[in-house]
Amino acid sequence: MVPHLITALTGPINELEQRVLESMPAIERWFRLEWMEHTPPFYSSVDLRNAGFKLAPVDTNLFPGGFNNLTPEMLPLAVQAAMAAIEKICPEAKNLLLVPEGHTRNSFYLSNVATLTRIFTQAGLNVRLGTLDESIKEPTALALPDGGQLTIEPLVRKRGRLGLKDFDPCTILLNNDLSAGVPRVLEHLHEQYLLPPLHAGWALRRKSNHFRAYEEVAKKFAKLLGMDPWLINPMFAPVQGLDFSTGQGLDALQTQVDTILNKTRRKYKEYGIQEKPFVVVKPDAGTYGMGIMTVRDAKDLDELSRRTRNKMSVCKDGQLVSEVIVQEGVVTHERVHDAVAEPVVYMMDRYVVGGFYRIHAERGEDENLNAPGASFVPLAFAQSSQLPRPGEKPGASAPNRFYMYGVIARLAMLAASYELEVTDPEAEVYA
Amino acid sequence: MVPHLITALTGPINELEQRVLESMPAIERWFRLEWMEHTPPFYSSVDLRNAGFKLAPVDTNLFPGGFNNLTPEMLPLAVQAAMAAIEKICPEAKNLLLVPEGHTRNSFYLSNVATLTRIFTQAGLNVRLGTLDESIKEPTALALPDGGQLTIEPLVRKRGRLGLKDFDPCTILLNNDLSAGVPRVLEHLHEQYLLPPLHAGWALRRKSNHFRAYEEVAKKFAKLLGMDPWLINPMFAPVQGLDFSTGQGLDALQTQVDTILNKTRRKYKEYGIQEKPFVVVKPDAGTYGMGIMTVRDAKDLDELSRRTRNKMSVCKDGQLVSEVIVQEGVVTHERVHDAVAEPVVYMMDRYVVGGFYRIHAERGEDENLNAPGASFVPLAFAQSSQLPRPGEKPGASAPNRFYMYGVIARLAMLAASYELEVTDPEAEVYA
Repeated sequence: MVPHLITALTGPINELEQRVLESMPAIERWFRLEWMEHTPPFYSSVDLRNAGFKLAPVDTNLFPGGFNNLTPEMLPLAVQAAMAAIEKICPEAKNLLLVPEGHTRNSFYLSNVATLTRIFTQAGLNVRLGTLDESIKEPTALALPDGGQLTIEPLVRKRGRLGLKDFDPCTILLNNDLSAGVPRVLEHLHEQYLLPPLHAGWALRRKSNHFRAYEEVAKKFAKLLGMDPWLINPMFAPVQGLDFSTGQGLDALQTQVDTILNKTRRKYKEYGIQEKPFVVVKPDAGTYGMGIMTVRDAKDLDELSRRTRNKMSVCKDGQLVSEVIVQEGVVTHERVHDAVAEPVVYMMDRYVVGGFYRIHAERGEDENLNAPGASFVPLAFAQSSQLPRPGEKPGASAPNRFYMYGVIARLAMLAASYELEVTDPEAEVYA
Repeated sequence: MVPHLITALTGPINELEQRVLESMPAIERWFRLEWMEHTPPFYSSVDLRNAGFKLAPVDTNLFPGGFNNLTPEMLPLAVQAAMAAIEKICPEAKNLLLVPEGHTRNSFYLSNVATLTRIFTQAGLNVRLGTLDESIKEPTALALPDGGQLTIEPLVRKRGRLGLKDFDPCTILLNNDLSAGVPRVLEHLHEQYLLPPLHAGWALRRKSNHFRAYEEVAKKFAKLLGMDPWLINPMFAPVQGLDFSTGQGLDALQTQVDTILNKTRRKYKEYGIQEKPFVVVKPDAGTYGMGIMTVRDAKDLDELSRRTRNKMSVCKDGQLVSEVIVQEGVVTHERVHDAVAEPVVYMMDRYVVGGFYRIHAERGEDENLNAPGASFVPLAFAQSSQLPRPGEKPGASAPNRFYMYGVIARLAMLAASYELEVTDPEAEVYA
């Protein structure tokens, strides 16, 4: 099933699909060479937007929380990728401590944790769950929607090592994005692998660093394919020193909104695109689709309602928002069951292991879909995870479409790898 | 679909299945540690026999020729495994020269070559086919059953490098088992990877080395699981200096047949197995199920018909047979559509990527099925390549059954790795 695309707009994306398919061996080799120089994130998920004339990543998650949305057919790929990842990082690994998010009442999220546990158990690790929630003092059973259960346990820190009672892991895998800050219990661990590293968490991570790195990756890739990088790259600008509650810094924000809107307008003109440009204002740190605003005209910012200001001023775990990015909006012209849809691609190590469509019946095509009410539909390739088929008509083949999504998602993953190198506080500086 | 097993005999194999499932993380870690010390074959396939009371590999192929029998759903796993293999061996690889078997009129085999081409193309290599058949002087198109075609080209040797016209590969992948001997064109290649190495071909390889290595692996694994290695290991003895046409050496063969039959009888008694023991006599070198004989009593060898002697005296490509192995026969109690069936597991690098049942309606449960008239049915896990499900009733779950098959097949692959180390003519000797 290839979701319905507004036909008039499918031309450019079909050209991109065709070019990507024709260049498959070159693209795979290019990734292989990049991975010789750069370390892929342990796991990741990327939200894409397919506008018909443009395909771009809009969010790269380094603590993916939707493994439960992958179909059973995709899981062997995830296990195989997990094996490859473990083998590279710590082949002698025996015990894995998985540290999930605190929202233990969300049964979807618990299913994600259960799926991760299964994947890593089958990849050859003893997996147990440790929580950052200090109110949990005893092993606690949590019911799963399928009738099973998970047990989360309080963390035990002993000098340089983190574990559980009678459980000394060599590897700690975070599935908690650290929006609330870096807990002391995770700091200064010795002789244990902490994955992803602390600076991948939203306490330290910034979207502006990510999209700066993505711009670099998109330029390199566009050169390889001989195409305009804009077709896969959303333009953006960072804005700092904001205070939505007092209005401080809103003029600087307006200037950047204007700039990005104008640049987008020029690009639309160049390609003859009959759409109204818009930008998305997002907190530079943070995730979960909180504090996100769609703006079509810089003047709209003059008259922000109190409600909008409140909404924009805090994001997950109550962190104040003073830094944002203004990003070129990429409309999504994909529809599943008449609802606006965006593809989400899941990766483990350097491998695409699956994906799904996030759909939202109550949201518009220029709005953020990562919000309450979203639901998930397995991606095209799910039922029959087939290889791309060169020679098929562009846009007609689900495996071909998904291959292209996997390539763009891997570009975003590669950008995350660049980003984590640049922002690594422990990196040695060669001056 | 778990093939029908004669119920009275499913006890011991279900115990094995349960123990294998319970020990999954320990087993996967054990493999991981073994692969730190040993290099897996580039690709391999293993024929298994499930007797209900015993599960054993009976043939380990290092030039697997049935990738076309894998379902489309399995191919992404093969591509991912191929990526991992290439990345380890030569990440900068761009061109791959695939050298297939000469029997170009076998459309099943051509489909296998087409599938391999697809897998490696998608893994990021430019793949072309070069033939050892010196009668082919020009690029030659061969029709595929699905309407497509393959082009095979004459090899071009230039000093230390092998390639095609205008094609200089960094890696040469053999899908030709070299039964006819090592062609000079493959010898003394410099700065090119030749996979698998020449001593993996049947010109040099011996089954006795393989099963000696397998015995060692089976013992290690049985120790890990606390079980009798015989449950997964077919006993064997090599016999040399035979000449079936003159009868020379037949007395030595009879002695070994007697020995293995007696040992098997003792084991059957120990486990209360109500079967009549048999042995299989196979050429020590060679494949394709040629020159294979089932023997139930050493006396039967007194009166070999001329036809049997002729059949036993030559194997593939007309090589004379003077060395054989006498192997404990493992009856196959699996049935698909009422025909005798044996599972075949396909591996790429260290990963199980798929499998199928080889079935043969006209053969008995104690006979070799790798013969004209065999057909193929995708393995249980094919349609829904699901992860094993701990907790399910042993023998009732296809994914669990297939996980066990994958473990035993990987033991045989590990044995092949040991074997290739021991027999490597270029290995340094530390005395």
